[in-house]
Amino acid sequence: MDVQYINPFVLAIKRVFETMVRTKVRVGKPFVKHDPCASADVSGVIGFSGDAAGCVVLSFPISVAVQAASKFAGTAIDESHPDFADAIGELANMVAGNAKKEFHGMNVSISLPSVIIGKEHMVSTSRSAPRIVIPCETDLGSMYVEVGMSVEKPTAATAAAAAGASA
Amino acid sequence: MDVQYINPFVLAIKRVFETMVRTKVRVGKPFVKHDPCASADVSGVIGFSGDAAGCVVLSFPISVAVQAASKFAGTAIDESHPDFADAIGELANMVAGNAKKEFHGMNVSISLPSVIIGKEHMVSTSRSAPRIVIPCETDLGSMYVEVGMSVEKPTAATAAAAAGASA
Repeated sequence: MDVQYINPFVLAIKRVFETMVRTKVRVGKPFVKHDPCASADVSGVIGFSGDAAGCVVLSFPISVAVQAASKFAGTAIDESHPDFADAIGELANMVAGNAKKEFHGMNVSISLPSVIIGKEHMVSTSRSAPRIVIPCETDLGSMYVEVGMSVEKPTAATAAAAAGASA
Repeated sequence: MDVQYINPFVLAIKRVFETMVRTKVRVGKPFVKHDPCASADVSGVIGFSGDAAGCVVLSFPISVAVQAASKFAGTAIDESHPDFADAIGELANMVAGNAKKEFHGMNVSISLPSVIIGKEHMVSTSRSAPRIVIPCETDLGSMYVEVGMSVEKPTAATAAAAAGASA
C-alpha cells in the first residue's frame, strides 16, 4: 500500500482511543510487515471498499482488550461477556470510519467487523497486498494496528485524497 | 441479517471449492450463531460494503486449511509457506465475490482479506449484527463459513436482489 495513506489511520487511532477509551496513544514508527508480528489474543478485523479496498486489524493482548472494552462500554466486561466482541468490533469500526473521513473525494464504505479471540494467534502477512503495522503504546498496555489498502485505479480524486492525507 | 441473502453464499462456497479446490462441498443447514462455534485454527476474513455491509469468514482446522491451500495453489504449501495466507485470503475473496454477483442491482464491493492463524481461536458472536453459520463438509474435512450482512436502507434494488437471491 501507498504509505501516504497511513497518516489518517494514525490520527484515527489517537482520536478514537482518546475520546472513546479515554487513554492516550503513543504511536511508534509504522513499518511494512514482512514477518508475522508479536502474537495477539484478541483481534478486531474490519474491511473497507469502494474507490479503495483495504482492511484494518486492531490486535491486543487479552489484558489490554479487556481494559479497552470495559472503558469503552463504561462497565467492566471481560472476554466472556456477550458485549465484549461488539465493543472490540465497534472500536475497529470507529478507527476505519474515522480514517475514511480523511480520504476526501474518495467513495469508501465500511464492512461489518469480525472479532477473533484466541490465545497467541497471528495475523498473517500477505505477499500480494503487504500491510503496514502501526505499533501503539497506551496507558493500558501495548497494541498494534495493521492496515492494508489498495487503490487499484488512481483517479484525480484519489490523488487529491492522498495529497490531503499526507499533508 | 435477512436469511434470504444466505443462498448466494451457499452457492458461492460450492462453486469456489468445486472449481478452485476441486473438492465437493456438502452444506449443512445454516443457523443463526448464538454461541461461539467449534474453534478454528485458520480463518480467512473478508468484508464487503456499499448498498449492503457485511463480512464472510471461512474457518478451518489446520489440516483442512493446508490441504485446501495446497490444492488451490497446485503445490504443497503448509501454514509456514509465504503463499499460504494469500491462498486462504483469496478463497475468502472468491466466495465473497462470487456471492456478490447474485445481488443484482446492488452496488457492493469487496475489501482486502485478513488471515488469522492460531490454534483453537474463536470467531466471536455479535449481538448487534448476528451472523449466520454455514456448516460445510468437504472431502478434505469439515469447515464452516459465517456470514453477516446488513442492508441498512432497503431500496427497490435491494428488495429485487433479495427476491432474486431467494428464488
